[in-house]
Amino acid sequence: MTRPFHHPRLEEITLDGLLHALSDPIRRQIVFNLVGCEGKSCNKTFEGLAPSTLSFHYKVLRETGLVRSEKKGVEVINFIRKEEIESKFPDLLKKVYQFHHPTNVKEQ
Amino acid sequence: MTRPFHHPRLEEITLDGLLHALSDPIRRQIVFNLVGCEGKSCNKTFEGLAPSTLSFHYKVLRETGLVRSEKKGVEVINFIRKEEIESKFPDLLKKVYQFHHPTNVKEQ
Repeated sequence: MTRPFHHPRLEEITLDGLLHALSDPIRRQIVFNLVGCEGKSCNKTFEGLAPSTLSFHYKVLRETGLVRSEKKGVEVINFIRKEEIESKFPDLLKKVYQFHHPTNVKEQ
Repeated sequence: MTRPFHHPRLEEITLDGLLHALSDPIRRQIVFNLVGCEGKSCNKTFEGLAPSTLSFHYKVLRETGLVRSEKKGVEVINFIRKEEIESKFPDLLKKVYQFHHPTNVKEQ
């Protein structure tokens, strides 16, 4: 049996965690790719990025509360916790997005 | 002879660096203490914080471009590079400040 993903509750989501998670350009790219999407599968890879590296970034994003992952059969679907983040840190994601330059990593 | 401090040029200041530096509550506290000040001496300590820890945080803040340090005799005076940061990342500091809760470390 696989372990379910752990997601922090909204009250456990901190500014420290969010800023740390968003300080990495690949994690920002993942987050902003997920905004407005219904969810993207973990199986989708980023060009030039090892699956283990991608898994690590998703783990950080889950642990800091930015992303929710759900197992659906053999797939993992990821969602950005936009409404929750927005309710606690209004416009923080928007402000960071303003200065984010898309990196070379692209979803394939 | 002591080495002069190294400060990155404005074009070398990155979103990655800023978010990383600001993800630490003590560094945020230092930054927001410096905002609006003429400069605070490195000799000022924070309650319960070892001088070496404080030095490390100032080093990170200098290297990421948030703080400029100047030697003045035996003292080190620190300035927040607010106008420069503001010109490149408008309202980013303000947005982070909005969600920052002052920590227990206090300048003495």
